[in-house]
Amino acid sequence: MNTVNLKQLAKELNLSVSTVSRALRDSWEISTPTKQRVFDLAKKMNFQPNPYASSLRKHRSRTIAVVIPEVANNFFALAIKGIETIAREKGYHVLIYLTNEDCGEEVSVAANLQSGRVDGVILSLSEQTRDVRHLLELQQRNVPLVFFDRVCDSIEAPKVVTNDYESGFVATEHLIKAGCRRIAHLTISMDLSISHKRMKGYTDGLLRYDLPFDEEMVIHCEDDEESIYRKIRALLSSEKRPDGIFASVEKLAVQVYHVCRELGLDIPKDVKVLGFSNLVTASLLNPALTTISQPAYEMGKEAATILFRRLEKKYIVVPDDRVILPARLEVRSSTI
Amino acid sequence: MNTVNLKQLAKELNLSVSTVSRALRDSWEISTPTKQRVFDLAKKMNFQPNPYASSLRKHRSRTIAVVIPEVANNFFALAIKGIETIAREKGYHVLIYLTNEDCGEEVSVAANLQSGRVDGVILSLSEQTRDVRHLLELQQRNVPLVFFDRVCDSIEAPKVVTNDYESGFVATEHLIKAGCRRIAHLTISMDLSISHKRMKGYTDGLLRYDLPFDEEMVIHCEDDEESIYRKIRALLSSEKRPDGIFASVEKLAVQVYHVCRELGLDIPKDVKVLGFSNLVTASLLNPALTTISQPAYEMGKEAATILFRRLEKKYIVVPDDRVILPARLEVRSSTI
Repeated sequence: MNTVNLKQLAKELNLSVSTVSRALRDSWEISTPTKQRVFDLAKKMNFQPNPYASSLRKHRSRTIAVVIPEVANNFFALAIKGIETIAREKGYHVLIYLTNEDCGEEVSVAANLQSGRVDGVILSLSEQTRDVRHLLELQQRNVPLVFFDRVCDSIEAPKVVTNDYESGFVATEHLIKAGCRRIAHLTISMDLSISHKRMKGYTDGLLRYDLPFDEEMVIHCEDDEESIYRKIRALLSSEKRPDGIFASVEKLAVQVYHVCRELGLDIPKDVKVLGFSNLVTASLLNPALTTISQPAYEMGKEAATILFRRLEKKYIVVPDDRVILPARLEVRSSTI
Repeated sequence: MNTVNLKQLAKELNLSVSTVSRALRDSWEISTPTKQRVFDLAKKMNFQPNPYASSLRKHRSRTIAVVIPEVANNFFALAIKGIETIAREKGYHVLIYLTNEDCGEEVSVAANLQSGRVDGVILSLSEQTRDVRHLLELQQRNVPLVFFDRVCDSIEAPKVVTNDYESGFVATEHLIKAGCRRIAHLTISMDLSISHKRMKGYTDGLLRYDLPFDEEMVIHCEDDEESIYRKIRALLSSEKRPDGIFASVEKLAVQVYHVCRELGLDIPKDVKVLGFSNLVTASLLNPALTTISQPAYEMGKEAATILFRRLEKKYIVVPDDRVILPARLEVRSSTI
């Protein structure tokens, strides 16, 4: 047995025992430079954690949790496949929790995950999440957290995202080049980082091509399906009907198709449609849907890889990593 | 405290203590009539279980597990929604486990669930599952089990299914009435009850209309996507090409569309296509897909309702319930 303990480490570093302890647990409360100092000295002095910390380090549940808003979206279904591919290699179980876009459920799931039920968490925020204390608490409890797609910029944790801003710009530019002059943007909650970035890509796209920004052309679709349907129907029935639609998520593009059919609008003649989507049937739709396809499977794999890197090398600081995997514009008949 | 114990109950019933104990835990090893005798007397004598049993009865995890083969299928995504609706009402968490159609993973998940991690399990079998000892063990460990869709007939447990035989018959009849004389059936593993029943509906449909059964028209699609693609392409490229296709699951119908497009075959002129499916885009495909739609959401709700009934009234015997929720034929342009 070694003889170095927390107290000695703390004395040597001129820090409190509690700070050293939290630094060793990679707590969010401790700054990265301080953690680095603590880890460096711990290594140098050959510090061995106590049995409790050691038992934590063994990650005995051999289970990770994936917390996502829904599964009816092909993006999340594919991301799960990617996560499972890595977890299977590592011999881990994957638990999937759905928040159904409800922050209360996300809070409740996070509380449930604090108990040591899982060794780590991969999460994509619910649409409603504003206050993120439940996630900070999870980190404080030493549960490593990796975000993907809908990430939280205010939490220091690894994040796997796509190039949302550039994709929003490319989508808008594509519609403009296809002849659209009045492009509507259908978005979900503006509390989400992805919504902000896709929307910024949209407004910058308009700006770049000297098209006016019209607030009425931004439709916020954060409610239940029925009211989303009504909003889209109102948009497409109005006198100032758009000639192009950029849907920021899959379900909104599908809803546009349904409404166009009801109203007898021809895609792409009357209105061109483009959506962020990983629909397996995108190319089989009538007409085939032009998409911005995120590398969902790869994003899942990457998020899991980062999480296991953390689980396996606990004392290596993982800073605020951000991995960006680019999405791809797939042009089909709905816009040309 | 009451004074009746297991020994007295056993003596009164002329059964072994172990039999009474297992009966009270609703073990699969004990016949239903015996369980009923034990429960009746236990109630009459005001038998109170011991603290261990009582702690089990409190269901302290307040969590149920849903074990399914995949989520990329809209049937399962909808079923989960139904299960979650009920679980939320009851204040329970839902953990979703994917087996990826792999029996080994199903065994591993079942072992993981024996530990008291969850209060009950809702399960749909993997394609590969033949030996079901892992599920019997789960029941022995007092973890209530409810099957849905892909059920196991040899295990005594509640089952929520659709009318697979009738639906298979109706699907085949519809294709025949639409003019098909050479109908292929694309099926997944014949180890699954649903495959058997849908196939029997198909063969009986042919018989009913005096059409010959041709073994070459039954395509077993249990492998990886690549080989499924090759089989479907071979079928549709052959000289004895079918004029109708009945796909027993969603992904096979989607694959048929892709292959038809590649081969330049016109649906429905060259070949009519019908599939079991809950695709939200079924009506938007080119051409719109005729489906047998299972009441997936309702099946999930029903399975969860039955499970909670078991969790809440532990001493009521739930026999081999089988709830059948009928599917619906939705005729669209792919067959007319």
